[in-house]
Amino acid sequence: MSGTDICETFHHAMNGGTHTGGRVLGIDRWLLRKFLHGMGDPRIRASLWDGKVVVTSMPAPAAGMVIHDRATLWRLVANPLLNFGEDYSTGRIGIEGGLVEFMEAVYRAMAKGRRHSPPAAGRRTRSANSLAGSRDNIHHHYDIGNDFYRLWLDREMVYTCAYFPHPEATLEEAQAAKMELVCRKLRLQPGQAVVEAGCGWGALALHMARNHGVTVRSFNISHEQIAYARDRARAEGLEGRIEYVEDDYRNIAGRYDAFVSVGMLEHVGPNHYRELGKVIDRSLTEHGLGLIHSIAQDVPEPLSPWLLKRIFPGSYPPTLREMMEVFEPWGFSVLDVENLRLHYAKTLEHWLARFEENRERIAGMFDDCFVRAWRLYLAGAIANFRVGKLQLFQVVFARSANNLIPLTRSHLLDPTGHA
Amino acid sequence: MSGTDICETFHHAMNGGTHTGGRVLGIDRWLLRKFLHGMGDPRIRASLWDGKVVVTSMPAPAAGMVIHDRATLWRLVANPLLNFGEDYSTGRIGIEGGLVEFMEAVYRAMAKGRRHSPPAAGRRTRSANSLAGSRDNIHHHYDIGNDFYRLWLDREMVYTCAYFPHPEATLEEAQAAKMELVCRKLRLQPGQAVVEAGCGWGALALHMARNHGVTVRSFNISHEQIAYARDRARAEGLEGRIEYVEDDYRNIAGRYDAFVSVGMLEHVGPNHYRELGKVIDRSLTEHGLGLIHSIAQDVPEPLSPWLLKRIFPGSYPPTLREMMEVFEPWGFSVLDVENLRLHYAKTLEHWLARFEENRERIAGMFDDCFVRAWRLYLAGAIANFRVGKLQLFQVVFARSANNLIPLTRSHLLDPTGHA
Repeated sequence: MSGTDICETFHHAMNGGTHTGGRVLGIDRWLLRKFLHGMGDPRIRASLWDGKVVVTSMPAPAAGMVIHDRATLWRLVANPLLNFGEDYSTGRIGIEGGLVEFMEAVYRAMAKGRRHSPPAAGRRTRSANSLAGSRDNIHHHYDIGNDFYRLWLDREMVYTCAYFPHPEATLEEAQAAKMELVCRKLRLQPGQAVVEAGCGWGALALHMARNHGVTVRSFNISHEQIAYARDRARAEGLEGRIEYVEDDYRNIAGRYDAFVSVGMLEHVGPNHYRELGKVIDRSLTEHGLGLIHSIAQDVPEPLSPWLLKRIFPGSYPPTLREMMEVFEPWGFSVLDVENLRLHYAKTLEHWLARFEENRERIAGMFDDCFVRAWRLYLAGAIANFRVGKLQLFQVVFARSANNLIPLTRSHLLDPTGHA
Repeated sequence: MSGTDICETFHHAMNGGTHTGGRVLGIDRWLLRKFLHGMGDPRIRASLWDGKVVVTSMPAPAAGMVIHDRATLWRLVANPLLNFGEDYSTGRIGIEGGLVEFMEAVYRAMAKGRRHSPPAAGRRTRSANSLAGSRDNIHHHYDIGNDFYRLWLDREMVYTCAYFPHPEATLEEAQAAKMELVCRKLRLQPGQAVVEAGCGWGALALHMARNHGVTVRSFNISHEQIAYARDRARAEGLEGRIEYVEDDYRNIAGRYDAFVSVGMLEHVGPNHYRELGKVIDRSLTEHGLGLIHSIAQDVPEPLSPWLLKRIFPGSYPPTLREMMEVFEPWGFSVLDVENLRLHYAKTLEHWLARFEENRERIAGMFDDCFVRAWRLYLAGAIANFRVGKLQLFQVVFARSANNLIPLTRSHLLDPTGHA
């Protein structure tokens, strides 16, 4: 389903639905108050279609929402995790003040509610990431147009968490630093063979081949991304050193000195982690190092139904415990885990700022409803990383018996003095 | 059970058992060959009581074993994981060449066998580490005499994995570097309050109070260790800044800026991890950091029955997945995991060398059988860390919503240039 399809669905729904607010009744206000109390009393304002503030917290909160009609109020109460996104996208719910601040306040309240009742372990979605299912899911998000992503990603088109050696680094600097950090963690040496599972638009493979003298085979099932990456490798004269393969990670063959996967595990699904580990086990040499970089969470919970429906079908951010299902059955040793949560909040802030700068052009490519849906996705992600609902782990691993692993982290030191 | 008791048991067994080898029969040799094949054909020599080599691998292995009588051979075959230790300790099994090399060859062969059949998840011992059970288990190992441990530990009496900034660091330097590394990972600031679960002879608390200006409450259920630690704090004039509490970690009360536990989790038992997490949850301030340092393993397996019986009753080295049971139910974020496996092999090499230098004195304190049992424990541990059967994780964690966590690892940099 492309971005345009999403909005056609919305427009159809809007035309069919009631859209006149009518007079605000006592029961409307009661319902809204009750609902927000159930959500943990987030520090926001909330108004109904008469424009009057019904709920507000003290001191005055930074952001508020306006619900434009009764049908939207009832839809929200009935299924907030799905319908907030749907109705924000179509404009039936408006936000005053910052969307990020609003989402942050809501997530913070929800997180507090969770802390009072530790969740049962193991709650999570099981997504059908078969070979064909994965292809559909990836196509949904990554094939909506390279021109669109070019408007708000960095120059190298890196669509994963950057690494900010210092808070004022630019997005371009931070993405380059992230790629270099990954290479250092893998201790790449000239002449080594690297396999990459999920390569986006190919930037990491280019960085590795260009700056570390390795050969890379990169797997990705997004047709648009692979085509783009091949063009770049040719343009840089690196086509003899990088092979971009349009295929599923499960079809990786050969043996490699390093296995790397940045931003793919989110799309694999926990019921396929053991299988991913098997692929790594047959691919990695005796003294090879591996790195998996993935969005994660501290407590196992499915993504919001709206995100699953509209933005990332089939996705799931694992806990570190769940990630161990990649490694433990095959006896891999975890050598190093680094949590880059705050870096992803910063990365997303850069993306959202560039997205807003280009919102007219994006609305021209798609429409306003698409702009609002993607704004909500980016702002919601910032909020989720800020409140600690989402994490970002880089996990370095090796075979248990590999004694050529580094003794210390001194190889991670950047010559410019940034660790 | 003290060290002396162990050997009285052994002497009793020896006097009651057959001890004449008799003529070596074809079936003895067949049994030995069959047995070693079942163990994965370790690269060792093996001889029986006539002194002739029955089994050897090519090229010539570095180490071999001699089984001194038929009863020992049959005992070994019947229950190798228990009886190798028992019969090595009493001298019924001898080792030619290095004991470490011998154990390493055996563990390497066993690990290869394991790799061909990934183990079922969750295999592990459930030890009864109730409050009273823990006290007995800890007394068994840690209360056998400070004078004994002084003979082979470093000057500061640190009985956990050291950190070697470079391979030639002395044990004293490496233990100081480990304590400093822990303090840096916790970002200790003068005036902060630290709680320590399991403090050994008190060295880390002294280092923290002396070098970082914090106050420390340290819990330990070993009476001998607590008495020793209190003397040291008094001698250094730090008794106003450190309180050594002879009590179980489950009785920790109060709120602290940092929670630290170095080398205790091995004694906690997986069925108590959630409870440990609860203690941390009620003890740590909103922006507090925690660190757990523990022996671990890549694949869940109980310790050898010999080690459980003679050296570490009630112990279990968790996998990283199992360790997450401390953190996940309480929504803690893992910030950093470092695997110090090779550092523990080096630490143990230092301990074993000092132990051997003092073996006459130790035999005088206990007896030869005790010396052999502890030599086997230390040599076996070196081998286990070398082959990757054991790991050592330092895990840094914080509350999910703590946004004052460090952005990078630059705070871990040592001013002397060692990372």
